[in-house]
Amino acid sequence: MAKIIGESLYNIPWQEKPTDCREPVWRYSENPIILRHDTAVSNSIFNSAVVPFRGGFAGIFRCDDRAVTMNLYAGFSDDGIHWEIGDTPLVFEGEPAVTGVEYRYDPRVTKIGERYYITWCNGYHGPTIGIGYTDDFRHFTQLENAFLPFNRNGVLFPRRIGGTYRLLSRPSDNGHTPFGDIFISESPDLIYWGKHRHVFGPAPFEKSGWQSAKVGAGPVPIETDEGWLLLYHGVIHTCNGFVYRTGAALLDSEDPSEVKYRTKYYILGPEVSYEQCGDVPNVVFPCAALADADSGRIALYYGCADTVTGLAFTTVDSLLDFLKKNSL
Amino acid sequence: MAKIIGESLYNIPWQEKPTDCREPVWRYSENPIILRHDTAVSNSIFNSAVVPFRGGFAGIFRCDDRAVTMNLYAGFSDDGIHWEIGDTPLVFEGEPAVTGVEYRYDPRVTKIGERYYITWCNGYHGPTIGIGYTDDFRHFTQLENAFLPFNRNGVLFPRRIGGTYRLLSRPSDNGHTPFGDIFISESPDLIYWGKHRHVFGPAPFEKSGWQSAKVGAGPVPIETDEGWLLLYHGVIHTCNGFVYRTGAALLDSEDPSEVKYRTKYYILGPEVSYEQCGDVPNVVFPCAALADADSGRIALYYGCADTVTGLAFTTVDSLLDFLKKNSL
Amino acid sequence: MAKIIGESLYNIPWQEKPTDCREPVWRYSENPIILRHDTAVSNSIFNSAVVPFRGGFAGIFRCDDRAVTMNLYAGFSDDGIHWEIGDTPLVFEGEPAVTGVEYRYDPRVTKIGERYYITWCNGYHGPTIGIGYTDDFRHFTQLENAFLPFNRNGVLFPRRIGGTYRLLSRPSDNGHTPFGDIFISESPDLIYWGKHRHVFGPAPFEKSGWQSAKVGAGPVPIETDEGWLLLYHGVIHTCNGFVYRTGAALLDSEDPSEVKYRTKYYILGPEVSYEQCGDVPNVVFPCAALADADSGRIALYYGCADTVTGLAFTTVDSLLDFLKKNSL
Amino acid sequence: MAKIIGESLYNIPWQEKPTDCREPVWRYSENPIILRHDTAVSNSIFNSAVVPFRGGFAGIFRCDDRAVTMNLYAGFSDDGIHWEIGDTPLVFEGEPAVTGVEYRYDPRVTKIGERYYITWCNGYHGPTIGIGYTDDFRHFTQLENAFLPFNRNGVLFPRRIGGTYRLLSRPSDNGHTPFGDIFISESPDLIYWGKHRHVFGPAPFEKSGWQSAKVGAGPVPIETDEGWLLLYHGVIHTCNGFVYRTGAALLDSEDPSEVKYRTKYYILGPEVSYEQCGDVPNVVFPCAALADADSGRIALYYGCADTVTGLAFTTVDSLLDFLKKNSL
Amino acid sequence: MAKIIGESLYNIPWQEKPTDCREPVWRYSENPIILRHDTAVSNSIFNSAVVPFRGGFAGIFRCDDRAVTMNLYAGFSDDGIHWEIGDTPLVFEGEPAVTGVEYRYDPRVTKIGERYYITWCNGYHGPTIGIGYTDDFRHFTQLENAFLPFNRNGVLFPRRIGGTYRLLSRPSDNGHTPFGDIFISESPDLIYWGKHRHVFGPAPFEKSGWQSAKVGAGPVPIETDEGWLLLYHGVIHTCNGFVYRTGAALLDSEDPSEVKYRTKYYILGPEVSYEQCGDVPNVVFPCAALADADSGRIALYYGCADTVTGLAFTTVDSLLDFLKKNSL
Amino acid sequence: MAKIIGESLYNIPWQEKPTDCREPVWRYSENPIILRHDTAVSNSIFNSAVVPFRGGFAGIFRCDDRAVTMNLYAGFSDDGIHWEIGDTPLVFEGEPAVTGVEYRYDPRVTKIGERYYITWCNGYHGPTIGIGYTDDFRHFTQLENAFLPFNRNGVLFPRRIGGTYRLLSRPSDNGHTPFGDIFISESPDLIYWGKHRHVFGPAPFEKSGWQSAKVGAGPVPIETDEGWLLLYHGVIHTCNGFVYRTGAALLDSEDPSEVKYRTKYYILGPEVSYEQCGDVPNVVFPCAALADADSGRIALYYGCADTVTGLAFTTVDSLLDFLKKNSL
Repeated sequence: MAKIIGESLYNIPWQEKPTDCREPVWRYSENPIILRHDTAVSNSIFNSAVVPFRGGFAGIFRCDDRAVTMNLYAGFSDDGIHWEIGDTPLVFEGEPAVTGVEYRYDPRVTKIGERYYITWCNGYHGPTIGIGYTDDFRHFTQLENAFLPFNRNGVLFPRRIGGTYRLLSRPSDNGHTPFGDIFISESPDLIYWGKHRHVFGPAPFEKSGWQSAKVGAGPVPIETDEGWLLLYHGVIHTCNGFVYRTGAALLDSEDPSEVKYRTKYYILGPEVSYEQCGDVPNVVFPCAALADADSGRIALYYGCADTVTGLAFTTVDSLLDFLKKNSL
Repeated sequence: MAKIIGESLYNIPWQEKPTDCREPVWRYSENPIILRHDTAVSNSIFNSAVVPFRGGFAGIFRCDDRAVTMNLYAGFSDDGIHWEIGDTPLVFEGEPAVTGVEYRYDPRVTKIGERYYITWCNGYHGPTIGIGYTDDFRHFTQLENAFLPFNRNGVLFPRRIGGTYRLLSRPSDNGHTPFGDIFISESPDLIYWGKHRHVFGPAPFEKSGWQSAKVGAGPVPIETDEGWLLLYHGVIHTCNGFVYRTGAALLDSEDPSEVKYRTKYYILGPEVSYEQCGDVPNVVFPCAALADADSGRIALYYGCADTVTGLAFTTVDSLLDFLKKNSL
Repeated sequence: MAKIIGESLYNIPWQEKPTDCREPVWRYSENPIILRHDTAVSNSIFNSAVVPFRGGFAGIFRCDDRAVTMNLYAGFSDDGIHWEIGDTPLVFEGEPAVTGVEYRYDPRVTKIGERYYITWCNGYHGPTIGIGYTDDFRHFTQLENAFLPFNRNGVLFPRRIGGTYRLLSRPSDNGHTPFGDIFISESPDLIYWGKHRHVFGPAPFEKSGWQSAKVGAGPVPIETDEGWLLLYHGVIHTCNGFVYRTGAALLDSEDPSEVKYRTKYYILGPEVSYEQCGDVPNVVFPCAALADADSGRIALYYGCADTVTGLAFTTVDSLLDFLKKNSL
Repeated sequence: MAKIIGESLYNIPWQEKPTDCREPVWRYSENPIILRHDTAVSNSIFNSAVVPFRGGFAGIFRCDDRAVTMNLYAGFSDDGIHWEIGDTPLVFEGEPAVTGVEYRYDPRVTKIGERYYITWCNGYHGPTIGIGYTDDFRHFTQLENAFLPFNRNGVLFPRRIGGTYRLLSRPSDNGHTPFGDIFISESPDLIYWGKHRHVFGPAPFEKSGWQSAKVGAGPVPIETDEGWLLLYHGVIHTCNGFVYRTGAALLDSEDPSEVKYRTKYYILGPEVSYEQCGDVPNVVFPCAALADADSGRIALYYGCADTVTGLAFTTVDSLLDFLKKNSL
Repeated sequence: MAKIIGESLYNIPWQEKPTDCREPVWRYSENPIILRHDTAVSNSIFNSAVVPFRGGFAGIFRCDDRAVTMNLYAGFSDDGIHWEIGDTPLVFEGEPAVTGVEYRYDPRVTKIGERYYITWCNGYHGPTIGIGYTDDFRHFTQLENAFLPFNRNGVLFPRRIGGTYRLLSRPSDNGHTPFGDIFISESPDLIYWGKHRHVFGPAPFEKSGWQSAKVGAGPVPIETDEGWLLLYHGVIHTCNGFVYRTGAALLDSEDPSEVKYRTKYYILGPEVSYEQCGDVPNVVFPCAALADADSGRIALYYGCADTVTGLAFTTVDSLLDFLKKNSL
Repeated sequence: MAKIIGESLYNIPWQEKPTDCREPVWRYSENPIILRHDTAVSNSIFNSAVVPFRGGFAGIFRCDDRAVTMNLYAGFSDDGIHWEIGDTPLVFEGEPAVTGVEYRYDPRVTKIGERYYITWCNGYHGPTIGIGYTDDFRHFTQLENAFLPFNRNGVLFPRRIGGTYRLLSRPSDNGHTPFGDIFISESPDLIYWGKHRHVFGPAPFEKSGWQSAKVGAGPVPIETDEGWLLLYHGVIHTCNGFVYRTGAALLDSEDPSEVKYRTKYYILGPEVSYEQCGDVPNVVFPCAALADADSGRIALYYGCADTVTGLAFTTVDSLLDFLKKNSL
């Protein structure tokens, strides 16, 4: 039996697996949990990050407002399902050259020690990885961008490994990038970054077509006694556009650039109407996961069609079992 | 209180605003009002123009037939909601070099004096602006094309301004144009056009993303005591195609190339299934508006997913108020 | 009255035409008949081929598995509507240089004499036309590829004509080909192919827009006393992608490169949710047809949105009548 | 014998045809006549216009300066071969909305009555046709732009025809346009333009490949007793870029939208080093022609590789003879 | 010492290797041997095929005429260097459906038995491989096209192998194809073709960049006692277009789909002005080779910049030696 | 009078300015100084870096070999003009994950203290900035890549500024990037990089067209008493490809992200045959500069048409004077 290394989370959102479900991941029956107009100004709320916070939950949300500008907003919840999300975007303190950005989107939140670090796609002469932190989800400080443009999907590991911080990311171009590999980088201080290593890229079309165009890290990796469990998005390029689905990988505990397993099959893809229809059809985009070390339960938050937010469930056991039996 | 300058239209189609609606525009509860197969030959009926006519309503409709060729058809209605649309396309009298066109689509109808002028996208060695007129919606005369190709979305003002006719248009290329600005041109006689001036173009992506790729005029501008109220379409280019939404602008009464206000936020976007799914997904395309000078009511007709026709409502007050508070 | 030249098929799947249907083809009321997860491993089941077999029906199905790799699977049915489809792909005996392909998709099955020939799109340094045969749908032998890459939509005629086998195909490029014409080729032995002739290509946009980008053969042609009845797909390129619809053509009995009639109007297009939404939105792709020579009934199997399989009905009379009245 | 209708020009630049030349056009032996750095600031001088002026010659030159910005400069010459070109660009009086342009290039000069009209490609929210005039090549007045963007290669006829001014042009897009047809438009006053007619477009690739991508008018048409002699550029798209060559057409005297003859073969193409190598390799771009009504001599000025200016010679007789024998 | 298997050709064109030349191939000092205007109508003469004929030499030449249409012309020479080329294109007898093509280019000539077979790129609804033959270079018969479009660079082997004819070709798309692999096909009769096998494709960019975009067969393979010596073209895609160079490969005598050696380094690339400048800059395109079995001498004819024809020399010994020492 | 801050270099290569030269930079009369085949294996030698070394000069050269693979080679010279370049590429010691790269190109060499640092474009899952060092140009050590892909044109400053190393670079995509801005990054240790700041990007087309598509740093900046003198390349995108030219900028001494001046005009562009013709036509690419603090002389090494190496001269005075008078 695989074990999650981490905190107990007795109040993790949860539904039992439907008896007719053959797959390792199942949707919440009341999806979507956050609708497109759930704040006063929002066109869409998706690709967002949640964490346990003071007995309940806090989150950083990507809300595109009705001008369809992209920014980050804080929100709070008692049960992880019903959310109160603010109407004004986050304000970061920090270097004006860094904070004065053009747009922010696709956040992740990583708790390291007692501090909550946020990473996101930051508009600074093109998309790159922004980093900030908060202690209370009310005051926010922005650090230096991790990299030069062009980069997206920056995800911090929840602890130092071998003495350094580790950051996954996906170098890109400045448009609707048709390619994308996951890399990992190290830092002694969250300011200076180096020792960049390749983790994995798209799969050959004839072996695993759903992830043949590009891949990118999803939620913060979940530590297990067998390694880091990484959920990620994979993309296929059809004649009518990109389809985003979700897969899983297991990375080595001490050297997470080493891939031990990686799913040949997707574990969640756009199949219901709120995933197939919306501002960007056919997108399932995982951005955050809660995990309960006691029960092995995992709750996955994912963006649907770039419009609403969905919730899905799995367990560390079923996921690792699936991974090992269906590795690419 | 803003005032519409124009005729009374006591029988304008109307529904009160739902109490839970926070936005300045709301959909008709029985949408879509015209279905794709509502004529014997049609594949789709959308992007069409209606006007008050002899106590009821008349319209010029874009019907793509089941060969998916594009042409214009006349229709009549008592209440502006239930329509009888003809099975044969309009026949225009005029210069054979001009009338012998390849296709016609996206009509607008402008009443100037007692005559109804029609403008549309006309296939003459590429798309350009066709102009014609009718007195009875049974006999039609076609004038010279206003411009060289390539142009789309030609919209006439409902009266001469400073002694000349004024025409909005959007120069384009001969394909699925990825750019587009609104220009205005003058004519002494509806034949010769000049004094072309730039009105406005797309907005910066980081300020108003929904209109960052291209913009084009929608219905005939509505005259108010504060200027011309222009509804227009704005387009964003996502990784899975274009999304068309609707915005509003206020143009100066005497010099409509001068933009007084323009919405930062869209006022109507594809959010329900008949707008999100169809031959071209995610299109809301406003093409005509009825206005009642007495009540300030406005009824907006718009194409949905290039397949069916929808109806929405607003008032001049709420729209101007929204415009002023949310100008780009 | 047109006559189908062929076998009786008293148990052909059938529903009478709805009384309010004005078109020559109508959908099965319980569509889709095959769902995306109807096998243990499938992401989608579509673009597939069925034939009468031993009093019931057999089929070769395109199942993309949950890795989204494309392969062929055999299935059986008593009524042509409810299917048992295998969980493991076809295994072909034959030349390893030919059988060791990268992918297989979009099969057709043609009975010639007592043998069932399968043609499909075969990955051999790019897509080309694979050919194989079976006598029992349990053992399969693969022959040489008919052509060099790049080609798709290979469809065999059900008998020799003038002493040679005849094969329709659509030369393409190695991507999401934006063009495509139907050609016919001859062979004395199913190994060597030549005497390639052009059959027909896309129609001019202004005459028949739905088939203005590319066309390709669908089911095995149905022989009638007036010629070969060919159902085919036609594609339009909109600003938001390709839309696939279905048309019909009548080819000369003795020289099927000669087109006698061809529909100006499509006879089936994506209009319901399972055709408009799915992995590739807006696709109706005909791949097989059953025909009963006694009654003139035709049952059409077609892929929907590259995700599920639908069934539709027509008769040889109504189709030929429509063809003659609405020829391009 | 064909006759030029126009003025005598005894001092037209001239060299006799080399005895070994089989073609109707031959190069000046001292080409190029203007070098890239012939002004203090120029990167290149090409695609320029010359006319007889006060017993000598005047010209409007496209000089790209060493910032590679495009503007127009005046120049003077005694013999049409050795030129003094100014170091500062033309200054136009006129409407600020019109004169405040972003760039000017590819001028033509047309004498109508006693006034010299200049047309060029004018940057106003994209390229369009600018029009101005001068009486002395020292003071310049700019009129309204003839058209909306996007347009290039505007060429005025040297007299009114049927009471209206006539202007050739080539609608384009806002980039390196891959297509282009020649149109003609009318105006009563050089301000308002209409009655746009198609003149001719590219030729089919298999009939006349050198002009299969786009065509555009070159020098001001030369009037003859058989019609208007138009020299134009034609372009082929090879795997390594565009090649620009020169052809000729004869347009009807009274209705110049009617093409009487048009060369199947080019009459001048890039074949010597200053035409093959330069900032844009493989460009021969005719922009001006002098003609002597007495002798029938024609001197053709053309841009070479977007870098220098060349001169070539022909006669009205040999050109019309070639046109009639080799018409497309 | 490698031996050519074939006829003696004592009068093969020849120059000794310059003493300072380190490479296995050297240019003829009087290059180019055929100029662009060497026939009355030609714009360019290149990519052409020559063979020994009745004590002298005959050839089939690609001449693009001054309309830049592509066709084939016959020519004769006493010494293989000075050529008389006809002014009218080849006329083929044969099936009108096949001979009525749109264009012909890039011929090869293969002597099989006493007959001369010509293969070329033939315009039949896109480029494909045309085949014809002649006995006297005055009367020509055209056979069926070998393949469906789209294909280029068809090259016949000079004898049957294992009882069947063998044909190399390069499947392509219908534009300026950015990819290309060499395949081989078999036929019992030159009409029906099958058993298609992959020979080789582009090399990885980082191992052999000059052939990283596409490759295609050049002259008819030369038989040696070690296998078939194939000269071929390889293409790199730079930021300013394609560069075509020449390499060599050794194919197995009995199964020429098996590659024994293939040059990592090019053996001839564009380095002198007539190869670097012309209608398509930077093209060296080998199309024919003469070989003398007695001396081992090889004379290579190649197109230069799609404009003129060059000649180069090598020997079978030096080429095989180079191949073995520098194989990819 | 501006002063170079640095070492004396009495033996800097030098020629006086030609009396007829009006520009601030002039070419060496014996150019090109290094030919394409100057080593036994090279296809081309260009875009290379030289420094003073032990009384003479050493260099790191980009040689593409005759397989057209890109690698770095060391060379030595007594006079900076005649070079001995090795036949085998550099071998780097270091982390195998970093040294095992796919390709290396476009080196720069920076002396910091007594050590020579090399930066180049390094193939590691796409192009990025490689860093290494040498003390003797015989043994080489490679450090970590500075950045994630995709990046090119990494140039180190010759001393720490404010305690940190500074590196210029140009983020790109993984193809023939059509855009490019110069950024600067800091590092305490040459391993970890951060504090990325934008320096400058392309200029508006209408103000300085030659640098309107992309810009990138050239040689190591030269320190002067007025700031850092940076030579850089600028690119324009014409209809026939990219043209690379050279400009200059002056950066603030203490904060080199601050641009004090930048040339509106190019100072060196492709104008002679070895710059206009070659494997990539129309490229002048500056990669290294020698400077003599005593005389103010500067010798500029630049790649020509991606094929050979040229030398040009200027002085710090004339360059700064030109910069100030012609700043963008």
